[in-house]
Amino acid sequence: MFNFNYYTPTQVVFGKDTVEQVGDLVKKYGGTRVLVHFGGQSAVKSGLIDRVKASLDAAGIFHVELGGVVPNPHLSKVYEGIALAKENNIDFLLPVGGGSVIDSAKAIAYALYEPEEDVWDLYGHTRQSMGSFPLGAVVTIAAAGSEMSDSSVITNEKTGEKRGYNSDICRPKFAIMDPSLTLTLPDYQTMSGCVDIMMHTMERYFTKGGNMELTDELAEGLMRTVKKYAEILHKDPENYDARAEIMWANSLSHNGLTGCGNGGNDFASHRLEHEMGGMFDVTHGAGLAAVWPSWARYVYKEIPERFVRFAEKVMGVERTEGMSDEDVILKGISSMEDFYRSIDMPTNMRELGIEPTEEQILEMANGCARATGGKVGSAKVLYEEDMAAIYRMAI
Amino acid sequence: MFNFNYYTPTQVVFGKDTVEQVGDLVKKYGGTRVLVHFGGQSAVKSGLIDRVKASLDAAGIFHVELGGVVPNPHLSKVYEGIALAKENNIDFLLPVGGGSVIDSAKAIAYALYEPEEDVWDLYGHTRQSMGSFPLGAVVTIAAAGSEMSDSSVITNEKTGEKRGYNSDICRPKFAIMDPSLTLTLPDYQTMSGCVDIMMHTMERYFTKGGNMELTDELAEGLMRTVKKYAEILHKDPENYDARAEIMWANSLSHNGLTGCGNGGNDFASHRLEHEMGGMFDVTHGAGLAAVWPSWARYVYKEIPERFVRFAEKVMGVERTEGMSDEDVILKGISSMEDFYRSIDMPTNMRELGIEPTEEQILEMANGCARATGGKVGSAKVLYEEDMAAIYRMAI
Repeated sequence: MFNFNYYTPTQVVFGKDTVEQVGDLVKKYGGTRVLVHFGGQSAVKSGLIDRVKASLDAAGIFHVELGGVVPNPHLSKVYEGIALAKENNIDFLLPVGGGSVIDSAKAIAYALYEPEEDVWDLYGHTRQSMGSFPLGAVVTIAAAGSEMSDSSVITNEKTGEKRGYNSDICRPKFAIMDPSLTLTLPDYQTMSGCVDIMMHTMERYFTKGGNMELTDELAEGLMRTVKKYAEILHKDPENYDARAEIMWANSLSHNGLTGCGNGGNDFASHRLEHEMGGMFDVTHGAGLAAVWPSWARYVYKEIPERFVRFAEKVMGVERTEGMSDEDVILKGISSMEDFYRSIDMPTNMRELGIEPTEEQILEMANGCARATGGKVGSAKVLYEEDMAAIYRMAI
Repeated sequence: MFNFNYYTPTQVVFGKDTVEQVGDLVKKYGGTRVLVHFGGQSAVKSGLIDRVKASLDAAGIFHVELGGVVPNPHLSKVYEGIALAKENNIDFLLPVGGGSVIDSAKAIAYALYEPEEDVWDLYGHTRQSMGSFPLGAVVTIAAAGSEMSDSSVITNEKTGEKRGYNSDICRPKFAIMDPSLTLTLPDYQTMSGCVDIMMHTMERYFTKGGNMELTDELAEGLMRTVKKYAEILHKDPENYDARAEIMWANSLSHNGLTGCGNGGNDFASHRLEHEMGGMFDVTHGAGLAAVWPSWARYVYKEIPERFVRFAEKVMGVERTEGMSDEDVILKGISSMEDFYRSIDMPTNMRELGIEPTEEQILEMANGCARATGGKVGSAKVLYEEDMAAIYRMAI
């Protein structure tokens, strides 16, 4: 096992009707002038934005609003938020939404701390952030885990580049998680979220050389839980307890807990998906489902013991007489595909609804290589030709 | 499931040779004048205190020292620390030790924030803390989990009262955890620590009415891990990886993670043990081992489904033909006793080396009732007569 750092300062306020605490929480963390950031009109129509504003008003906090954040959030919206925030002397960011909205708010928060710099430089990794304005989140979608994570992913819609920047600086001060807010999410979005949540732990689980038993136990328990409640929500979307399980798993899966001691995460599937998302604007979780089985078949020989353990402990594969390790591994991967199919998620790009040409595959592989400094992965280090090979397998 | 709050702001720096980062970490969190607080001379003799001081010196941080904290840390030492800190204008507390040392430092940190007040009032619950000076911890014993917890337990050695105070205010800013520092701990202390660690999760697990599947999965994984590595360390105390597993479990077991959604912890066994510790000065973890089996047999009928799950998922009890739920439960409890015996921990008070008279039992039950406002527990609410009954069973 490797040395590690673990830092999750976000105060979690979890459960029914916790939204009404938002004004007091902003105040507690020093906010006096707030940008309420959100996505589509559903947050307005459902009355949620009004509840948030009423709570801010009750706490005597000034606020302006900026909606319109899209999935794979756009850099242009970030710039719009920066301008609006500067105009209104905003000192606190309040995203109300899922990962896209929170990631967009993180980008604005970085930018406000260094108003002379272009925030896109962070995502291009040409400089490091020196600080960020504080933010708190009201979570309405369980998927990206951004409310406790150090991560933010933004798409430059002019160039098609989807790029991430990670820093402890942007971890939110608080996160309000009311599972009720997710009860009306469409099935496709819920299931994509469940895939993303599982993948955040899988990216930390399939690594080479540094695993701790305690971390493995926590990771496996989390993955079993997500699998179980994804299946329940696919049939019974208004099940509050199931929504709660998924919502809490969402945060724990991406706050660092499930990777402690592993010596560095893999995240190759995420990086491969980023290029698909940049080129085709697919839903992130569904994109991950479409690429993971091919990634897994491409890399499993590097860390067979991890794949065996995953098959047995997470996918419930029972080793029968005569099964080799490889048989168990491949059964584990195909069981994951069965799970994806059972919740109407794709297992390859065709099922996802995209069919890149060879030229597009090479372009995505090249984009992925450029975005990762030429290589990515812990289970197996992937270079540009490996990336292209996995894309080809995933068609 | 119930609503919950989760707040673990402590920055964890985990692994070999992390002690050398202590000066930089104190500086990061604003410390300029530090009280280095520790227990016996082993921390000095091992060279650890010198390493800490060298790191503080390198960071240009002023420091004074106060050793001599004992297990079940004394209020008189807290007062001594307060006086020394005031004399030296200390602005940061740096406990180097286990739970006793960290708890003592927390008490000093509370006191420095409100210099006109008597800090013992907090432990008597006659007032609430308004704040605390910052502290960071260098952990040398895995047991109490104080380095990430909101808890501090102090013994007024003049009255024999052992009392706890819980508040998010005192959660350390950082915790340095180098498993190497625990390699030379005596077996009895290591095993007592393992019992305490498991109990911190068991106190959260055996509750009525509010469990989440995800929390259960994490709790069970943690308990299995502690059980496994306690057995390994009992035979092979210098096993670094095993020390690491136990050290990380120590923090996660008491930072709140394993109780999310349970609606309130039990902690009756802890409260019962506090009185034993106050009267007889026993090692905390060993005291818990001596009282838990009797507590379990006294309360299991209130939450049989929890005890069945514990038996099967943590203790590995296999239900054979004809076994009733009760059989499974009792097998689970006796399996825990077998585990305690296998690591040379007691399963009752005689084995712990104490044999309270009926008068002493009544005194402990009365003390426990007074300390808990007359009742304690979630699995089953215990009143003074229940407490006495459990003490009698535990002889």
